[in-house]
Amino acid sequence: MEFQEVLGYLAAFLTTASFLPQVYKSWKTKSTEGLSLTMYTVFFLGIVCWLIYGIFLNSLPIILANTITGVSAFSLILMKLKYK
Amino acid sequence: MEFQEVLGYLAAFLTTASFLPQVYKSWKTKSTEGLSLTMYTVFFLGIVCWLIYGIFLNSLPIILANTITGVSAFSLILMKLKYK
Repeated sequence: MEFQEVLGYLAAFLTTASFLPQVYKSWKTKSTEGLSLTMYTVFFLGIVCWLIYGIFLNSLPIILANTITGVSAFSLILMKLKYK
Repeated sequence: MEFQEVLGYLAAFLTTASFLPQVYKSWKTKSTEGLSLTMYTVFFLGIVCWLIYGIFLNSLPIILANTITGVSAFSLILMKLKYK
């Protein structure tokens, strides 16, 4: 596997995994006070576009990364609406 | 321009632009209470990887999107350290 491919997978992993501590923190503290609902809504729309884009390109890494990130972003939106 | 290319640009725009409301909110309220420092640190590392990946691919959209997102993520890290 070429260096740049490894880099792409590493980038996808890091930017996907990075949302998990935020989901955990918001869930544990039941607080989403500092979070911007606008950010996560716009971000979620962007992730859906990346997902469709990945399906068009038939690119498993893009599909996988954006499915996980999409679920994270969506759960943060739900928590934001629930906990304010 | 093909549909999927438009989708890629739209996705890049949305996921990049989405961080700006969060940067604005944190800056205005001087509060980053609900934000996870771990998330933004790991996320920032991922963005740096995407940026190097984009340079390797010579892909302007990936370079542009991740430069802007990188600056947003880095400023959120600084605010998180400053405002706690």
